[in-house]
Amino acid sequence: METQLSVIEDKPREACGVFAVYGHPEAAKLTFFGLFALQHRGQESAGIAASDGCMVRAHKGMGLASEVFGEENLARLPGNLAIGHVRYSTTGSSTLSNAQPFLVHHGEEYYALGHNGNLINAQSLRRELEDSGSIFQSTMDSEVIVHLMAPHLKKGIEPALKAALKRVQGAYSIVMLTRNSVIAFRDPRGFRPLSLGRLNDGWVVASETCAFDLVGAQYLRDVQPGEIVIINEVGLHSLKPFPRVPHSHCIFELIYFARPDSQVFGQNVYLCRKRFGHALAREYSPDVDFVMPFPDSGNYAALGYSEESGFPFEMGMIRNHYVGRTFIQPTQPMRDFAVRVKLNPVKPLMAGKKILIIEDSIIRGTTSRNRVRYLRENGAKAIHMAISCPPTRFPCPYGIDFSAKGELLAAQKGIEEEIARFIGLDSIHYLSLEGLVRSTGVNQEAFCLACYTGKYPLQPPGEIQKLCFE
Amino acid sequence: METQLSVIEDKPREACGVFAVYGHPEAAKLTFFGLFALQHRGQESAGIAASDGCMVRAHKGMGLASEVFGEENLARLPGNLAIGHVRYSTTGSSTLSNAQPFLVHHGEEYYALGHNGNLINAQSLRRELEDSGSIFQSTMDSEVIVHLMAPHLKKGIEPALKAALKRVQGAYSIVMLTRNSVIAFRDPRGFRPLSLGRLNDGWVVASETCAFDLVGAQYLRDVQPGEIVIINEVGLHSLKPFPRVPHSHCIFELIYFARPDSQVFGQNVYLCRKRFGHALAREYSPDVDFVMPFPDSGNYAALGYSEESGFPFEMGMIRNHYVGRTFIQPTQPMRDFAVRVKLNPVKPLMAGKKILIIEDSIIRGTTSRNRVRYLRENGAKAIHMAISCPPTRFPCPYGIDFSAKGELLAAQKGIEEEIARFIGLDSIHYLSLEGLVRSTGVNQEAFCLACYTGKYPLQPPGEIQKLCFE
Amino acid sequence: METQLSVIEDKPREACGVFAVYGHPEAAKLTFFGLFALQHRGQESAGIAASDGCMVRAHKGMGLASEVFGEENLARLPGNLAIGHVRYSTTGSSTLSNAQPFLVHHGEEYYALGHNGNLINAQSLRRELEDSGSIFQSTMDSEVIVHLMAPHLKKGIEPALKAALKRVQGAYSIVMLTRNSVIAFRDPRGFRPLSLGRLNDGWVVASETCAFDLVGAQYLRDVQPGEIVIINEVGLHSLKPFPRVPHSHCIFELIYFARPDSQVFGQNVYLCRKRFGHALAREYSPDVDFVMPFPDSGNYAALGYSEESGFPFEMGMIRNHYVGRTFIQPTQPMRDFAVRVKLNPVKPLMAGKKILIIEDSIIRGTTSRNRVRYLRENGAKAIHMAISCPPTRFPCPYGIDFSAKGELLAAQKGIEEEIARFIGLDSIHYLSLEGLVRSTGVNQEAFCLACYTGKYPLQPPGEIQKLCFE
Amino acid sequence: METQLSVIEDKPREACGVFAVYGHPEAAKLTFFGLFALQHRGQESAGIAASDGCMVRAHKGMGLASEVFGEENLARLPGNLAIGHVRYSTTGSSTLSNAQPFLVHHGEEYYALGHNGNLINAQSLRRELEDSGSIFQSTMDSEVIVHLMAPHLKKGIEPALKAALKRVQGAYSIVMLTRNSVIAFRDPRGFRPLSLGRLNDGWVVASETCAFDLVGAQYLRDVQPGEIVIINEVGLHSLKPFPRVPHSHCIFELIYFARPDSQVFGQNVYLCRKRFGHALAREYSPDVDFVMPFPDSGNYAALGYSEESGFPFEMGMIRNHYVGRTFIQPTQPMRDFAVRVKLNPVKPLMAGKKILIIEDSIIRGTTSRNRVRYLRENGAKAIHMAISCPPTRFPCPYGIDFSAKGELLAAQKGIEEEIARFIGLDSIHYLSLEGLVRSTGVNQEAFCLACYTGKYPLQPPGEIQKLCFE
Repeated sequence: METQLSVIEDKPREACGVFAVYGHPEAAKLTFFGLFALQHRGQESAGIAASDGCMVRAHKGMGLASEVFGEENLARLPGNLAIGHVRYSTTGSSTLSNAQPFLVHHGEEYYALGHNGNLINAQSLRRELEDSGSIFQSTMDSEVIVHLMAPHLKKGIEPALKAALKRVQGAYSIVMLTRNSVIAFRDPRGFRPLSLGRLNDGWVVASETCAFDLVGAQYLRDVQPGEIVIINEVGLHSLKPFPRVPHSHCIFELIYFARPDSQVFGQNVYLCRKRFGHALAREYSPDVDFVMPFPDSGNYAALGYSEESGFPFEMGMIRNHYVGRTFIQPTQPMRDFAVRVKLNPVKPLMAGKKILIIEDSIIRGTTSRNRVRYLRENGAKAIHMAISCPPTRFPCPYGIDFSAKGELLAAQKGIEEEIARFIGLDSIHYLSLEGLVRSTGVNQEAFCLACYTGKYPLQPPGEIQKLCFE
Repeated sequence: METQLSVIEDKPREACGVFAVYGHPEAAKLTFFGLFALQHRGQESAGIAASDGCMVRAHKGMGLASEVFGEENLARLPGNLAIGHVRYSTTGSSTLSNAQPFLVHHGEEYYALGHNGNLINAQSLRRELEDSGSIFQSTMDSEVIVHLMAPHLKKGIEPALKAALKRVQGAYSIVMLTRNSVIAFRDPRGFRPLSLGRLNDGWVVASETCAFDLVGAQYLRDVQPGEIVIINEVGLHSLKPFPRVPHSHCIFELIYFARPDSQVFGQNVYLCRKRFGHALAREYSPDVDFVMPFPDSGNYAALGYSEESGFPFEMGMIRNHYVGRTFIQPTQPMRDFAVRVKLNPVKPLMAGKKILIIEDSIIRGTTSRNRVRYLRENGAKAIHMAISCPPTRFPCPYGIDFSAKGELLAAQKGIEEEIARFIGLDSIHYLSLEGLVRSTGVNQEAFCLACYTGKYPLQPPGEIQKLCFE
Repeated sequence: METQLSVIEDKPREACGVFAVYGHPEAAKLTFFGLFALQHRGQESAGIAASDGCMVRAHKGMGLASEVFGEENLARLPGNLAIGHVRYSTTGSSTLSNAQPFLVHHGEEYYALGHNGNLINAQSLRRELEDSGSIFQSTMDSEVIVHLMAPHLKKGIEPALKAALKRVQGAYSIVMLTRNSVIAFRDPRGFRPLSLGRLNDGWVVASETCAFDLVGAQYLRDVQPGEIVIINEVGLHSLKPFPRVPHSHCIFELIYFARPDSQVFGQNVYLCRKRFGHALAREYSPDVDFVMPFPDSGNYAALGYSEESGFPFEMGMIRNHYVGRTFIQPTQPMRDFAVRVKLNPVKPLMAGKKILIIEDSIIRGTTSRNRVRYLRENGAKAIHMAISCPPTRFPCPYGIDFSAKGELLAAQKGIEEEIARFIGLDSIHYLSLEGLVRSTGVNQEAFCLACYTGKYPLQPPGEIQKLCFE
Repeated sequence: METQLSVIEDKPREACGVFAVYGHPEAAKLTFFGLFALQHRGQESAGIAASDGCMVRAHKGMGLASEVFGEENLARLPGNLAIGHVRYSTTGSSTLSNAQPFLVHHGEEYYALGHNGNLINAQSLRRELEDSGSIFQSTMDSEVIVHLMAPHLKKGIEPALKAALKRVQGAYSIVMLTRNSVIAFRDPRGFRPLSLGRLNDGWVVASETCAFDLVGAQYLRDVQPGEIVIINEVGLHSLKPFPRVPHSHCIFELIYFARPDSQVFGQNVYLCRKRFGHALAREYSPDVDFVMPFPDSGNYAALGYSEESGFPFEMGMIRNHYVGRTFIQPTQPMRDFAVRVKLNPVKPLMAGKKILIIEDSIIRGTTSRNRVRYLRENGAKAIHMAISCPPTRFPCPYGIDFSAKGELLAAQKGIEEEIARFIGLDSIHYLSLEGLVRSTGVNQEAFCLACYTGKYPLQPPGEIQKLCFE
């Protein structure tokens, strides 16, 4: 009816978050809280499927988990097992039929599935399946997994799952629910995170550990790349049906996506981002009065920069906590409205000052440009900017929507001077790839850095490839 | 139907915010954005009344301004003049009939009114008016003003307003709308803020200047205590019908209520709060590894403390940005849920550390107690707390809902050791009254400090008085 | 948002229905069912006020009673006493603030009021009250009664009510609720019906007796014209403070408004309408193959006509039972859509036939014109029409919205030939005034026949008078 | 949230209605009106799919068509081709995922399908398809048709459809939509009706002709049993791929389901029902004062009975036109509430009278029993009842939900005296099978009479069979 006010952050958008629980009397409600803690990973739709051992029921809807779920519909999802999903669409169009968990009733069994990531060969698999008579319900890449499993299900879920996963390629951290089991599995390269925890006698699985904290669960270990974990009445059973390949953890989880209170790929995100700030401070040191983030994205790198550099840290942009749910279009003379409505500067703090802004990423640059102009109108004498990652130059086929290459600011501009001029900065600095990786304290080979380097660990399909290298 | 999840901040609740505009073709929409910037002053209901010179129309509803208003109902409020109101009830019960603006059609004229503050003699005036035949629509104290005006309206609005204000006592910053005029007035002591600005050829009035920033207006001056400002086709006309009395600005606006990017009572709120932090650092210096706020309330005092003390500043409590609109009750074993759902600590940061938390106020102390326990469970070695104001010991009859005296933690406990023990702290320190006032840079006489001192600038009615002094 | 599809019946619209109950543990719910049975008297808004002896609570909304009320909001209206109201606006604009019951809290007492009828001197009383300082909440004529009572309420409700009713003129059948009493009163001429019944040890009051049938109450007697009935813990108390005047029952209640299963003004409506049909048959006898109503308005007069004349009775227009709640505008080529969507003829029944249609009233005639054309297109050879009342030539100031005189078809056309030509009939006949009155079996003086004769029992205010006699 | 008030008519419930249009610029809106006219065939859900030649879009929801559709969502269904469906579930559970049209995207084409009827071998086909790897979206029997088509679609829709229909058995009147064609087909026995009409240059298909009247289309002919009609840019193309078998038109369409203004199986329903009344009068003639229907079901048979017998016809039960959408549970003492809320007798008409009630069917008899008792309490001296069909003794596997055999009153009781005693009648008479069939003027062999005779034209699956013959 109304279209949302475009206070779009100039940020890549995460695909999804998943959560699962085995062995809790209010599994659906617990899953709701898990999704609540993972809400930052997807705000487009939310869904939960729960099993009472006999029947699997699902409810999903467009919007935030707290908008989709209430006491009443949670009460209609009884049982000790549940999985949940929050989504921002990277593949498939943005409709309810593409919301997850995806639930089918087949034979005498139910299969519900929630997926974080992106399969790179889904289109060709789908064409093949349709040609042999399969009818698809959605346009989601995840649906092919179920269709690939179907002909093998009579042999059991384990062989069916192995048969299906042998065919798919790409990034997937998936939770699956049947009448009596929760299954969690992760692609052999481990693009997206997936963690395993305990809650009393039960088990929980989540995209990020912050979800464990909210529900009071203990983090145990990560579901390993290439591992299939099956949890049922006989306990937890682990399979590793794939040959071992190098890992390709998405470094953007550490830079931007994951919540700072999560442990991801063995790292504490907050501390890691502070180290990105330290590295930035060592690489770049303009003459400024203070350093500040555009909240909340650059908060922790800015703290780290301040710590390392000694420049004071200020929180001079004040956030309107009620933004984000307004649908009113601004009146004509309200220039920079989308910028102002979210963040307003503390004017006396800016007047006559030289400022260093720390950001964690810039994609299109237009929001930054408006903010920088607004700060100058409020008296800032000089404005510099440091980005806590290298320029993003290549699109991601593994589940992150940077938009196509043509729109990527860094890809477009190429050199820092031009970018600074476009945004209206006195100078800009991107953290070096070396600085980035070294800050993680982990071997560079553990990460997928394709969005910076163009070196794709899995060959993307033709169309994306063309965008990348031409 | 459902009751909101009790993630109640342990904070006093502000009464209201008001906004008015004269001379803008989309006056109602502009007012909406004004309310949007003032939303922190009241989330219970929102309303707008607009005049097209001929008819005054109003729309109001329970909830946030962005929930109450859409393009469609704004389009039904045409005209160049409008007033708006966001409310948290301090008097009158929490129902739509108590939402403002309060609109009446009387004689051939309309009168709409939006009120921030609290009248202390409203009950006795109401009884008197009812005895002489008046019928009240609401239980709001503000309604008496209109009834007091009614018999005098044949003489004009100015004499009617003077006659009415002569009778009322208490705190009021009010915007009023008729067919062709916007009127703004403030009680002689100036308890609550009210500012005047220009927008092109028109005028705007707002509780706080942050609303001017959003709509692109220029701050001109404050509506002065005891001043009536009438804006109509002949321009702005100022009356000062009251004898001059000392001012009694509510210091809690600076400590907690106002947005940090506002100028209130001639002060920049952000810088003022940082100075409270400086003062705290001079008064209190426990042995700690770092200082951190519970976001977002203590942010600026914490920054000031860090600056003055040299202790590192950390942002170790991560906020869930999606909280506040969830209605699901936690499952049984989720201890401290209300605490965890809002803020989650960065565990590796806490482990083995001595922490100083900066807060801007504590009323009941139970939320703080749970948070402190949760931090200790996550490994904090010592936890100290500093509050950027003195202990609140007395209730406020001028429009702030601290709840009755019996519940005020400071009033109840009396001594800091006991409070520290109750919350589970190693030590606690409240900013001294002297330190507080000196930080403002203004003469102490300019403020109402009754909630700390019990010295009420206007004698409150018997019942409140009893609560205070017994 | 959307405007209702204009399947407007060519009918006058009734003002209101009222219901009250004293002494039933679920008084509000019982009132809901009373309103449900009276729904035909007003579909614009519905409301209920209930008292638990201590507090009076009200809920009202736009729409049908079944849309406004659910188990939940009824549960929030506890108590043994309640009144209810369904409304179609004749005075005051069509907004929620004009919905009834009208509830005020005054002194320590509550007063809720539901009104059927129309006061003819409300405007001048309102002006007078406003001049002396009263503030009105609504634009309803009924509100003046409460304001007229207010200055006398200290003396008790009985003297206050007498003082107020001495001032008002017009039609009123009113139910009133206080903490501990239900009061029902009717104007001295008894324009509108009002009946009294018993339900176990309690009492019920309703506009029509069909409401008693639904709730299982026994009809006792009518509240008499000019009577005030006060029901409280000491029982039922009757006052007749007015000098006796001739009665002026609205004959249109018998012709059209009341439900056929009600007893109104001492008449059974179904049997009365059949007698109108008998009288029609005696006055008018065209050569036809069968007689049929346009359902449901002419059903009973058509049955009576068939019975008296011997012509077969058919039900050849089929009603769509789902009409009335559609908001979709027809596509361009859908001629006569508003007609067809409600009633569709049985084509083979019409082909080559001579038809007599019986109607209970025609106001503007356009719907009838379209229906008649549609029947001819389906093969009807001749179409005659008989109306079970005389031509409506004068507007009604006592609570019926015939629309102003200029639009009344009969007033406009004057002679039956012209009306027949306008509608496309072979002939038309209106029941004579004499035939109408004689069918009731009651003395002509008992009725208000002003809409046919222009002889107003109470002088209407100037403006309406002008419309009538010029 | 709330459960609907159980004013359940004691009637079998129809499965569905379908509508299709080819060649109208507002195809979706026209379809909406078609569904509106077919609403009596299903009130549980409504849906429309439309094609603009490039994309097929669908919208469906639970509730009436007028609740599911508004201008806005119709505007999102552009195109010249559309199909629509209203449903009352006979197979599959009552959820949105079982609402129709059922839409799939397969290969590069879309297939949408709306089904009236019931497939008797759907379960075994489904099991077979799942075993070979098909994934089903819904529990509707109709879905198997699409899956059966899928492997053949590369050869074109015509061969695919033929291949699929060769496998299914049962009752189906189906409309199908692709990007550029509308397809309508009916099972070889023609259980359910399906008609074809013209609208200007375009085509319409509907379950009943009353839908043509509303949209202004001309009835052309029925889609014949066993016929597949394909409408696309080259015009209308008819296939008859099945060997000819005897017809089995559901006689219950004439007795109860179809609207009286429809032509069904070559009959005008209104006139046919009157003839059932004539036949009843010839078979049964108790001593009564008048005959009356329980509106609206027995209206036309009652008219016929009166015509043939000479007994007067009365409409003595008054219907509340606002019933059917209330969710409030009655208060405790409201006996027979479900009966009273819908129909209230005209008491003076009943007192001391002998009454013959005409009904079109009784299934469980409890509603009738309550109504009869209520009439006696209102003074009826004798009450007889005539039913315009034979006793229903056998369940229907072809799309009518009589409920299982155990609940069928006639099956249970067996002899008329017992039924009369159960309902509280002085006597009851069911129309004889012979009288029924002869009234249609058609050869008995043309109808399915299985619910009366137990002779199933198509062998139902085992479970139903068992219910029938044991």
